[in-house]
Amino acid sequence: MENIRVELGARAYPIHIGRDILDDKALYAPYADGRSAAIVTNTVVAPLYLERVHSTLAALGARTLDIVVDDGERAKDWHTLDAVFDALLRARCDRQTLIVALGGGVIGDLAGFAAAVYQRGVSFVQVPTTLLAQVDSSVGGKTAINHPHGKNMIGAFHQPRAVIADLATLDSLPERELRAGLAEVIKHGLALDAAFTQWLEGNMEKLLARDPGALTYAIRRSCELKAQIVAADERESGRRALLNFGHTFGHAIETGLGYGMWLHGEAVAAGMVMAAELSARCGLIGTEVPQRVRALIRRAGLPVEGPDMPPERYLELMSIDKKAAQGKTRFVLLEAIGRSTLRAATNERQIRDALGACTRPARAAR
Amino acid sequence: MENIRVELGARAYPIHIGRDILDDKALYAPYADGRSAAIVTNTVVAPLYLERVHSTLAALGARTLDIVVDDGERAKDWHTLDAVFDALLRARCDRQTLIVALGGGVIGDLAGFAAAVYQRGVSFVQVPTTLLAQVDSSVGGKTAINHPHGKNMIGAFHQPRAVIADLATLDSLPERELRAGLAEVIKHGLALDAAFTQWLEGNMEKLLARDPGALTYAIRRSCELKAQIVAADERESGRRALLNFGHTFGHAIETGLGYGMWLHGEAVAAGMVMAAELSARCGLIGTEVPQRVRALIRRAGLPVEGPDMPPERYLELMSIDKKAAQGKTRFVLLEAIGRSTLRAATNERQIRDALGACTRPARAAR
Repeated sequence: MENIRVELGARAYPIHIGRDILDDKALYAPYADGRSAAIVTNTVVAPLYLERVHSTLAALGARTLDIVVDDGERAKDWHTLDAVFDALLRARCDRQTLIVALGGGVIGDLAGFAAAVYQRGVSFVQVPTTLLAQVDSSVGGKTAINHPHGKNMIGAFHQPRAVIADLATLDSLPERELRAGLAEVIKHGLALDAAFTQWLEGNMEKLLARDPGALTYAIRRSCELKAQIVAADERESGRRALLNFGHTFGHAIETGLGYGMWLHGEAVAAGMVMAAELSARCGLIGTEVPQRVRALIRRAGLPVEGPDMPPERYLELMSIDKKAAQGKTRFVLLEAIGRSTLRAATNERQIRDALGACTRPARAAR
Repeated sequence: MENIRVELGARAYPIHIGRDILDDKALYAPYADGRSAAIVTNTVVAPLYLERVHSTLAALGARTLDIVVDDGERAKDWHTLDAVFDALLRARCDRQTLIVALGGGVIGDLAGFAAAVYQRGVSFVQVPTTLLAQVDSSVGGKTAINHPHGKNMIGAFHQPRAVIADLATLDSLPERELRAGLAEVIKHGLALDAAFTQWLEGNMEKLLARDPGALTYAIRRSCELKAQIVAADERESGRRALLNFGHTFGHAIETGLGYGMWLHGEAVAAGMVMAAELSARCGLIGTEVPQRVRALIRRAGLPVEGPDMPPERYLELMSIDKKAAQGKTRFVLLEAIGRSTLRAATNERQIRDALGACTRPARAAR
């Protein structure tokens, strides 16, 4: 088992990465002992892992409650959140209750936000069961639900007490979700670490084949990179924004199509190509960089083009991005492979051009 | 103008208390300059003060948005909160937006919680316009909405950047609301400060007559007492729970009757008598103390008896109180006038007896 620590003073916590650690009592014991615990999971994950986590918590003496919600991004809404509150209140869960988020990014965000605001905040543990959640969303304390007007618009920074990433849960992960998770792995490389990007270019086939060694390294390195950034800038007043590389365009795709049409990782993948194209148009990098970005993303089996959506719609959707400041959309742009920067958009023409380079009609015209 | 500081390190903030300071530009300038600002208020307060606050913020260069919600405790629900989010998102309010809570406790709790979770947290300023909000709810960063299963069950600790308490707003306050505010003033005395309690016993008539000097002193002393407690225990892991004196019984009254039947302060008033009676039954104080508590509360024109609700209902409602731990309801009890303690309930008989001493049939039987 590998252990990484997110250094956040009084709120510091461990990330445990290993095989079959989902029901390792010792990992839950510091947070579950003698309390009540509520496991929040979904209809897809519950049949696979709920019983094991439930027995583990019960064996620790915790009065254990299961809360099973629908699968998918659509469940990240107020309606589902309220169902979680309802279950917690009916079971008389108090402020000492531990919430366990068992599932992918949607469950982590939803259960984490429930933990952030239930009785003004209770403890929670992340047990991510998708690659995307293991490499990204379970770490760093960002929790949220969606609003019809924008993704993750309602949320909180609320750090988990621990992250328990069981590699065995990836065995059952659908191919499409594995690829979506690789998008965030690639993001960490492109935005933060040139050497890791190079490693990814050399090991993409192994990752797609779920080679245990390659997956472990990719997860560990992603968590290390993210833990460093989060420790330096917990509430995203600066450097943490770089983790949103590809997300401004990506969120526009998700919101524009309606949540759940594209997986988050797929939208981020296309969004990273767009951001790279925009970086080149802003003169930050040469045109060979977006080509290299495109090649890597394509090799991961991820989309390098956006859906058929007019540029006006992208611009409109991006204007309410959370990174916006003084009414200006801001983008994370590449200064090189492995180095990124946050910039306010000043030139709409360049954004339109970048979008044009990443949509079908424009491609046909090239 | 009097200024008190809530010492919370990086989150420290001032409480300004004075007449006609609602539109003092200098008090808003550090937080509103050049940003967008959203004023959240209700249909009763808007006609009285909205225009003045709006012009003040606009004069500072802030793009200013008004969000007017319904009056009353019923507005502290998800539906109204979502309407606030909707208005913020439609106006493209970003993470730099300042939210101004203009109104009483309900507006402060609602707008404060909106600020806590909108885009994972934006700044807010409290402009309390009721006595209750000025002496209690606007200070300390507790924000929340109600849930059908319990009061303030969904919320966050989110400190304001400043509190601007304009005494002139109390001129228009209905008599019943003034009295409800005095309940929290009395609470600060009974739970924390014997000398202040004595001062209240000597000045209740002046307070009810809205004597400016007496009101200013009562507000300042309440804010000082609360600021000290909050600075020592921001997230209520210990001493801060003492500020809930009377609230365990009080919340049961509010939830049991349906929000809005009794004012919060009225429910707390009766709740304090119940808590004092329970303290005597637990042997912490002599029977003369509940009599003194009852006399002071009666002189403030506040209820000293609960509504006609069976003890079983109280017990049921109190079991989901936020102070509950390991399934046990906990009460703030008096050890003397001005000194209180948090205790787990061990003897249901004593609670029933205390309730019996504070309801009409029991009184008739005495």
